Amino acid sequence: MSLLELKQQVLEANLDLPRHGLVTFTWGNVSGIDRAAGLVVIKPSGVEYERMQLDDMVVLTLAGERVEGTLRPSSDTPTHLALYRHYADIGGIVHTHSTHATSWAQACRAIPALGTTHADYFHGAIPCTRPLTPQEVEEAYEAKTGSVIIETLGEIEPLAIPGVLVSEHAPFAWGKDAHAAVHNAVVLEEVARMALYTLMINASQHAIPDHLLDKHYSRKHGKNAYYGQTSQPASSTPVSTTAARRVA
Amino acid sequence: MSLLELKQQVLEANLDLPRHGLVTFTWGNVSGIDRAAGLVVIKPSGVEYERMQLDDMVVLTLAGERVEGTLRPSSDTPTHLALYRHYADIGGIVHTHSTHATSWAQACRAIPALGTTHADYFHGAIPCTRPLTPQEVEEAYEAKTGSVIIETLGEIEPLAIPGVLVSEHAPFAWGKDAHAAVHNAVVLEEVARMALYTLMINASQHAIPDHLLDKHYSRKHGKNAYYGQTSQPASSTPVSTTAARRVA
Amino acid sequence: MSLLELKQQVLEANLDLPRHGLVTFTWGNVSGIDRAAGLVVIKPSGVEYERMQLDDMVVLTLAGERVEGTLRPSSDTPTHLALYRHYADIGGIVHTHSTHATSWAQACRAIPALGTTHADYFHGAIPCTRPLTPQEVEEAYEAKTGSVIIETLGEIEPLAIPGVLVSEHAPFAWGKDAHAAVHNAVVLEEVARMALYTLMINASQHAIPDHLLDKHYSRKHGKNAYYGQTSQPASSTPVSTTAARRVA
Amino acid sequence: MSLLELKQQVLEANLDLPRHGLVTFTWGNVSGIDRAAGLVVIKPSGVEYERMQLDDMVVLTLAGERVEGTLRPSSDTPTHLALYRHYADIGGIVHTHSTHATSWAQACRAIPALGTTHADYFHGAIPCTRPLTPQEVEEAYEAKTGSVIIETLGEIEPLAIPGVLVSEHAPFAWGKDAHAAVHNAVVLEEVARMALYTLMINASQHAIPDHLLDKHYSRKHGKNAYYGQTSQPASSTPVSTTAARRVA
Repeated sequence: MSLLELKQQVLEANLDLPRHGLVTFTWGNVSGIDRAAGLVVIKPSGVEYERMQLDDMVVLTLAGERVEGTLRPSSDTPTHLALYRHYADIGGIVHTHSTHATSWAQACRAIPALGTTHADYFHGAIPCTRPLTPQEVEEAYEAKTGSVIIETLGEIEPLAIPGVLVSEHAPFAWGKDAHAAVHNAVVLEEVARMALYTLMINASQHAIPDHLLDKHYSRKHGKNAYYGQTSQPASSTPVSTTAARRVA
Repeated sequence: MSLLELKQQVLEANLDLPRHGLVTFTWGNVSGIDRAAGLVVIKPSGVEYERMQLDDMVVLTLAGERVEGTLRPSSDTPTHLALYRHYADIGGIVHTHSTHATSWAQACRAIPALGTTHADYFHGAIPCTRPLTPQEVEEAYEAKTGSVIIETLGEIEPLAIPGVLVSEHAPFAWGKDAHAAVHNAVVLEEVARMALYTLMINASQHAIPDHLLDKHYSRKHGKNAYYGQTSQPASSTPVSTTAARRVA
Repeated sequence: MSLLELKQQVLEANLDLPRHGLVTFTWGNVSGIDRAAGLVVIKPSGVEYERMQLDDMVVLTLAGERVEGTLRPSSDTPTHLALYRHYADIGGIVHTHSTHATSWAQACRAIPALGTTHADYFHGAIPCTRPLTPQEVEEAYEAKTGSVIIETLGEIEPLAIPGVLVSEHAPFAWGKDAHAAVHNAVVLEEVARMALYTLMINASQHAIPDHLLDKHYSRKHGKNAYYGQTSQPASSTPVSTTAARRVA
Repeated sequence: MSLLELKQQVLEANLDLPRHGLVTFTWGNVSGIDRAAGLVVIKPSGVEYERMQLDDMVVLTLAGERVEGTLRPSSDTPTHLALYRHYADIGGIVHTHSTHATSWAQACRAIPALGTTHADYFHGAIPCTRPLTPQEVEEAYEAKTGSVIIETLGEIEPLAIPGVLVSEHAPFAWGKDAHAAVHNAVVLEEVARMALYTLMINASQHAIPDHLLDKHYSRKHGKNAYYGQTSQPASSTPVSTTAARRVA
């Protein structure tokens, strides 16, 4: 994929956020990475989706130096870069303030795997980070947001749990590219909504058992996947059940 | 109805799912059956609704052998086939992850008949299956999902309670054909939503009494139905009140 | 207004129900009355809104004899007729299963006047009827639904509280004509929604005090109304505060 | 800006209310002020948004004398004027009955700053006024609504907390001009919605700590703001953290 194609994909992925009802005003951003070139494309800060164009996309090195574009990149750029530097498998990242996922983040609660919809995409609970310390907020707020996500995931492979809640803030999601990241952000919002309703119906409901979690995740992911049309499974993530479930 | 007409009907019924807001991405599937020919038409697995076409529909025997179509059928096909084989009256089946019905399924709670909207379509509580055992999940997950639905309905006539919640998973609904099945899936979602709100307003509210349940169900169904324009009642299901209510 | 114009108004008022999101499928009906001629125009039973036309409207006497139209009238017709016969001021009636108002009806709870939005239209709590007895359901279900609404309103002037919840069923609303009735049904649904959320935020919240209830109601209604552009007040209902509040 | 341009801006800002889903029927109004000329432009009372035109806008002095327009101004005009007279920094005001913000107002509860979405716009809790006394309601209801908002804000700079809940009634929001006021009304509604859900997930959740509140507010506001594209910060409001937080 050329840099121009990557910019086009990142632009489209950003425009998908309002289409899926994930953003109010400019409250969201998507980025994508060209691993070979070591370049990240990200949405500019505070630009309205209706006016956003290809040339507004900002191109940066993994160290955060601007290579292309005249606009200031998203203020959350240091978070994106921290995640790309740490996780070689991530090709796209999304940040939104989508209503229900943000409510879980504000409640400082991980979303337990309450059903198979969750298990189809997230191989265990969707964790919530600890709050940042005053020092972390003061010194390098956005970069430390990346650090605390990495600290929270711990041993989890990022594509097995492709999203996280940042405590008191909002969700981040990711995927093999920018489109997959938006797809996972949509799933995260819907899973968060159904988890809220589920606990309203039955406050003592707990996570589904491991055998069902593993079954649904492996229907869609891993070498024995049989959902969809590709003989190639939807993701090459090996279904390692242990690390992911540790969070729940 | 010719096989071509059935394929057309099943395609349209599938396309009705996003129109009614019942699905996110590809999370749903509709099938229909030609009883005389013994052939089932079902949606292909993982194909986007926007791109779905007549020739994508998969035609199968009741034993699951593919007769027409080049795509892989829905991964939930064994559940559909188990229901068609067991219930001669069912002509169409729908599976969705619609938000509120799925939340009840995740909460592992039957939806009590809390009002006449429910009673107009479901002659008693909408039951929730027991969880599958690890062995059932391992051996034949989708087929056993059909078995546990049948086990849960027990003596209930399927058209008197045209839908069920699969524990920890999501709803299935059915009807005399594919369109009626989608209609019932829409009703199930709306009934699930209102039941949630009802219990939030009054947590100790219980099911409506039998005389009101029977009255509303029989206004629309059975030989004395007087809703709508047909002298022929909307469904030929006899109004047997005992079995259905046993679930509530 | 000619009978043709009344039929046109009732048709439009019925088509407004799906526009305002008040109905699923055919779950609602609107009627209007020509008091001089003693004729009621009402929606036919079970006809889809998308296909409904002027000639589908059914014209009846107040005794329920069909004067015009070939279709069967709404199955709720006896309820409409009972209300028209008892209340000379009512010119239009609406029945829906709108989500939040129906949830309050299913919860068998009156909606307290929790804020000024409510007070702008309903001069006190929106009452909920007692359940019908098995005998009432058996003998004349729809007519007795009208009777129990009248019993519930008691001394209340119907235009001061232009709607009611039928226990275990759903709301009815009314107004000086069919359009005003639909307007009040929209308000009832929104007031029901906000009342649910209000009690979720503060479960012990109670109705607003009488001086605020009276102030807001009389801003819009009665001889000293000063909302809107007409020197003529929006409704000629005298602001009698006592009867309406008795319900709360 | 000419008076014609202000009228155009106020008309557009009013038409934005239904576009953002903030109003049912005519339940909302926006005004703007020309400080140099001492003239306020406001929506007429009870006019439908679909029919509203430039010449319907009413022009008033700060004392409430009509200078232009033939229609009666919004019945809430005295509230708008009281706020403009007291706060020199406010350029536009919005009143709506938006669903979730109104529910908090009806619950008589301030909205705590539960997350960074809130902190990006409101530098502390969104306060709720005390109820008006019977005397205040009787004597000058709308003007006293303005007084009680001013009393509630106390030492708070209005652009640091650009909105308030009027107890038992609904929200008011404001900004540097009419468009900014509508923007803040949209934020207030979304923040109110997420606060409700947050407390449903975790009833004991409390406001975010001051260091995070200050960080997010100052990312968007004040002399060190770094969100968006302007070197000029989004608002010239100094980030004085003490007064605003006193409310929480």
